[in-house]
Amino acid sequence: MTIQAKFERMGTDAAPGQEVRQQVGGIEALLRGEQIAGREVDFSHGDVDAFTPTPGSFEVFTTGVEAGGRQAYTEYRGDLSIREQLAPSLASFTGAPIDAADGMILTPGTQGALFLAVASTVAHGDKVAVVQPDYFANRKLVEFCEGHMMPIQMDYLNAEGRAGLDLGQLEDAFAAGAKVFLFSNPNNPAGVVYSRDEIKTIASLASRYGATVIVDQLYSRLLYSGIDYAHLRAEAIDAENVITIMGPSKTESLSGYRLGVAFGSKAIINRMEKLQAIVSLRAGGYSQAVFRTWFNEPEGWMDQRVRQHQAIRDDLLRLFRATKGIQARTTEAGSYIFPQLPPLAVSGKDFVRILRLQASVIVTPGTEFSPFCDSSVRLNFSQDHAAAVAAVERLVSLVDRYRA
Amino acid sequence: MTIQAKFERMGTDAAPGQEVRQQVGGIEALLRGEQIAGREVDFSHGDVDAFTPTPGSFEVFTTGVEAGGRQAYTEYRGDLSIREQLAPSLASFTGAPIDAADGMILTPGTQGALFLAVASTVAHGDKVAVVQPDYFANRKLVEFCEGHMMPIQMDYLNAEGRAGLDLGQLEDAFAAGAKVFLFSNPNNPAGVVYSRDEIKTIASLASRYGATVIVDQLYSRLLYSGIDYAHLRAEAIDAENVITIMGPSKTESLSGYRLGVAFGSKAIINRMEKLQAIVSLRAGGYSQAVFRTWFNEPEGWMDQRVRQHQAIRDDLLRLFRATKGIQARTTEAGSYIFPQLPPLAVSGKDFVRILRLQASVIVTPGTEFSPFCDSSVRLNFSQDHAAAVAAVERLVSLVDRYRA
Repeated sequence: MTIQAKFERMGTDAAPGQEVRQQVGGIEALLRGEQIAGREVDFSHGDVDAFTPTPGSFEVFTTGVEAGGRQAYTEYRGDLSIREQLAPSLASFTGAPIDAADGMILTPGTQGALFLAVASTVAHGDKVAVVQPDYFANRKLVEFCEGHMMPIQMDYLNAEGRAGLDLGQLEDAFAAGAKVFLFSNPNNPAGVVYSRDEIKTIASLASRYGATVIVDQLYSRLLYSGIDYAHLRAEAIDAENVITIMGPSKTESLSGYRLGVAFGSKAIINRMEKLQAIVSLRAGGYSQAVFRTWFNEPEGWMDQRVRQHQAIRDDLLRLFRATKGIQARTTEAGSYIFPQLPPLAVSGKDFVRILRLQASVIVTPGTEFSPFCDSSVRLNFSQDHAAAVAAVERLVSLVDRYRA
Repeated sequence: MTIQAKFERMGTDAAPGQEVRQQVGGIEALLRGEQIAGREVDFSHGDVDAFTPTPGSFEVFTTGVEAGGRQAYTEYRGDLSIREQLAPSLASFTGAPIDAADGMILTPGTQGALFLAVASTVAHGDKVAVVQPDYFANRKLVEFCEGHMMPIQMDYLNAEGRAGLDLGQLEDAFAAGAKVFLFSNPNNPAGVVYSRDEIKTIASLASRYGATVIVDQLYSRLLYSGIDYAHLRAEAIDAENVITIMGPSKTESLSGYRLGVAFGSKAIINRMEKLQAIVSLRAGGYSQAVFRTWFNEPEGWMDQRVRQHQAIRDDLLRLFRATKGIQARTTEAGSYIFPQLPPLAVSGKDFVRILRLQASVIVTPGTEFSPFCDSSVRLNFSQDHAAAVAAVERLVSLVDRYRA
């Protein structure tokens, strides 16, 4: 494959945050009715002005700058004293030990960790099991590494008490030679949490077939009341088969510092560091200092953040469910909601463009997450509460306007 | 190739900054004499405590944090207003226009830019011309992309008024199908600048054979008196064939913020952004704000910085040249010096370990840059002046002690 052909498949025009680079041409002919006024809400990512960064994060960054060269030039896998501070917190949170020296790497965002993990486990032609729907970059990472993607369906709309992963399909993929299984839990975009049974089955299948599992747990701290969360690494039979990825970009609103962490298999972490050395050297040195606030937030701060998100979730779900033909599963963790819209007179992608043009509402089209999700859109509801409600009111009124 | 085999070739144990992960075992049997006391100097990278970050950089970062979500979530290629501020300065510095909207990307460090540039131009099996010696990551980047490396020798010790690139060998590589030529100017590790004739020849050969040239000009602002610097992009016949990489990590000591920039070919920049979307999303949002200090330093600040480095260079050269059998070419730009040591009783790699153990002097072994440079070591002399001189005195006294 030429490099040009390889990159043509890796489009980002509809990716969250890239809307400014889209051309609006050609959409006018499809428009019905007038614009609906209202404050723009960008549901493509969380609003860190509405949910502000962890208290003290900037002060800790400042201390990092003051530390000078020692903080600017860390090991490629990140400052050891920071890894030593984080490891016990993450071990306690995830229910299994972490080796700060050899089993952990700090990365530029969880995106950095995901890239390193996939590129350190997937060679040209390797088979990789990927969930549909799942985080849009997963598919692109496999394409970049020229792996062979084996899609595993997750029927989240018709599952109760579990994510709805097709475990038979997963076993078939392993039996057919899939070396790596890559998934997010809670699922991005559907906001569902894998049941303990699902996680146990994934762990035992991976062990039986000798596959590596990369699990993106970015949103696992933002867990709503009544939800049981099972950490794969606590259930894993072979700890060297699992890489867990987390980071403080979302719930903690520290995205502007670009911080992520991967931990688990020492052999894979070692490869990830070799790769980080040529990809970006290290997570920004001064930014690494901000990790010191992580799992170290003021008493009650995280609980309040979870409650506030839950309240927004409930209001948005009410609006979606009051609209004929919209199906939305209740978000169990994280700040994504992924409603399936009724049949419309325009394609899902066009509806997303219309929504931006006529209602100042930015959402991410479902096809970013699965080829079968053209009628769904993803919203990150980590937003100003009132503005989010008003924006979803405009969204559902456009759904009514564009019904097929 | 399996993923394990691929990564075994990409060792980083001897890479600059990774010395803390080395095992010291097995070296004791080689030791001669006692330790030499002295303040540790780490020549593997510049000392940002000795040469501090650009005045105002932290204040500009603070403004970035205060700007909130707008600065945290930029386009993947970086904030447009920052690109618009930088483009004219960089265009004026490099002598050719830059399209801020479509011909430029902000990256996490110049390392990020290098990775994206190589991975966006080199597919599996593609031939890539790489200079020996040159920046250690260049070779590893080609290996990661599974390109086929074609080494081009640079006889910097026996060239005058030019870098000493073997232009015949370069033409042969292009004629044999090399699609990409990757090099640093000033050269890292040798500190030499390509002559205008060399640059013109590279430009015309690349154009004739339709090859892409990626030029890493990270150190091009730290230019010593009397040196003429030719920018490849100003000499290029086809601007779409050239990607230029720069950044404020070195001369400006802003490495802790992880900032780099690539500019030139729009088609390649477009691919680089697609890749950045899955590698690290973007250069750290708040850090991007620090770019506003770049090419915008206080009057006289850069001149003084160049003068101070030139004074250190001159002192170190005097010490090296006073030692029998050490050859060192005068650094023309940047802060690297790459002396070739006389025959020793131990290998170059072991001498580097002994130097750290017995003299508290950290340097990078020449074999990181070329398989033919076992008898050379690289020093980044962006250090406290007196400490650097004292450390090189210890270095040359160990050279005497370990002569073959």
